Amino acid sequence: MFEHVKALVFDVFGTVVDWREGIAREAGPFLARLGRADIDAHAFADAWRARYQPAMEEIRSGRRGFTRLDTLHRENLEQVLQAHGIAPAQIGEAALDELNHAWHRLDPWPEAVAGLTRLKRRFIIAPLSNGNIALMTNMAKRAGIPWDAILGAEVAQAYKPDPPAYLRTAEVLGIRPAELCLVAAHNGDLKAARAAGLATAFVPRPAEHGPGQRKDLEAEEAWDVVARDFQDLAHRLGV
Amino acid sequence: MFEHVKALVFDVFGTVVDWREGIAREAGPFLARLGRADIDAHAFADAWRARYQPAMEEIRSGRRGFTRLDTLHRENLEQVLQAHGIAPAQIGEAALDELNHAWHRLDPWPEAVAGLTRLKRRFIIAPLSNGNIALMTNMAKRAGIPWDAILGAEVAQAYKPDPPAYLRTAEVLGIRPAELCLVAAHNGDLKAARAAGLATAFVPRPAEHGPGQRKDLEAEEAWDVVARDFQDLAHRLGV
Repeated sequence: MFEHVKALVFDVFGTVVDWREGIAREAGPFLARLGRADIDAHAFADAWRARYQPAMEEIRSGRRGFTRLDTLHRENLEQVLQAHGIAPAQIGEAALDELNHAWHRLDPWPEAVAGLTRLKRRFIIAPLSNGNIALMTNMAKRAGIPWDAILGAEVAQAYKPDPPAYLRTAEVLGIRPAELCLVAAHNGDLKAARAAGLATAFVPRPAEHGPGQRKDLEAEEAWDVVARDFQDLAHRLGV
Repeated sequence: MFEHVKALVFDVFGTVVDWREGIAREAGPFLARLGRADIDAHAFADAWRARYQPAMEEIRSGRRGFTRLDTLHRENLEQVLQAHGIAPAQIGEAALDELNHAWHRLDPWPEAVAGLTRLKRRFIIAPLSNGNIALMTNMAKRAGIPWDAILGAEVAQAYKPDPPAYLRTAEVLGIRPAELCLVAAHNGDLKAARAAGLATAFVPRPAEHGPGQRKDLEAEEAWDVVARDFQDLAHRLGV
């Protein structure tokens, strides 16, 4: 299976790492230091993440030039603080940057690093995330994620699900789109990858959005591979 | 030492890998198959490499838009074949591409991977090469070079020694130029890196150009570190 595929690229937020727990873990103490322990840390993480797609849409639409995700996350952080009645100016740049870098310190799902280490034996493995190079590099360094390269939106200068995000990733690897497979926990991402000619692998992450998750619990199309987790993906791909 | 340095970036051709032997190893059989065993494989490698800087100069000067090194290498290969009286059209695209990818299959100097593995414990390590992403990724995969990220000219969209090649590399890592150190076997590369504000480390590779090498045998400025090889560099940086 997948004889023609040379590289696997991965969605990261949600697919490789648990962003909600990682952000809540750092937002909780941050809010407590501000005397705002009344704000639920997981709800704060959700509110921060809710501003992710609209911020990228400014760039996808062409209304704004390409801007790396660290900058968008920082702007969104100020907005979500203001929405909770907290003035960012009172916090100070260093503390805001520190919390913003919580996105660099997210933990992988339990089996992810072991699964990636197996998959790396046969395939080039790299992130195809909307996260920027520094974010992905620092995350991998801390968590021991054994990427062969750091690819994604900043290299492609385009945010998923815009087609160039997928096509330029194949191009910089020197391979055809059909030789590249996107692994993701999100049907929408896979749909865009398939439309661009990539192979597709779905791995559900039913806890990404916490206990009440309703979307992306199952494959919504006949993706090329559907696996339980990255270990199962390695098994299905024969490595 | 180097308390402020967060990432080490490496020149690759000559500093990490032995391009001359690697190219000669594949050019020899290639030329023999063409009935041209009279051409010395090392001289062929040198002639191919001699067209490297002039090709990039077209881009640095602004006469040509950014073009990745695989493409320049391929154009240069056709030129060097023609200069030896061989018509590229007679060879076929597949065989030309195959030899062109010899640049993806260069071997590291004997201690390089072990030294990099030590350095990786403390620093982010990445190539800052004029080689493109696919070239660097395939080379690292084959040789087991444990880069944390693949950076360099294609990410910066600028060829060394142009300042943006160094400055944008620091920028994508989210660090100041002074927090980035270039490791190189070439005084000219280090001179440009220092002018851009980077820290500098010199590691001589006296066999890069074969037995008659006369340049870059010694440090020509007081670089921040001068080491015998990558193991010695790890020792001097306390890792």
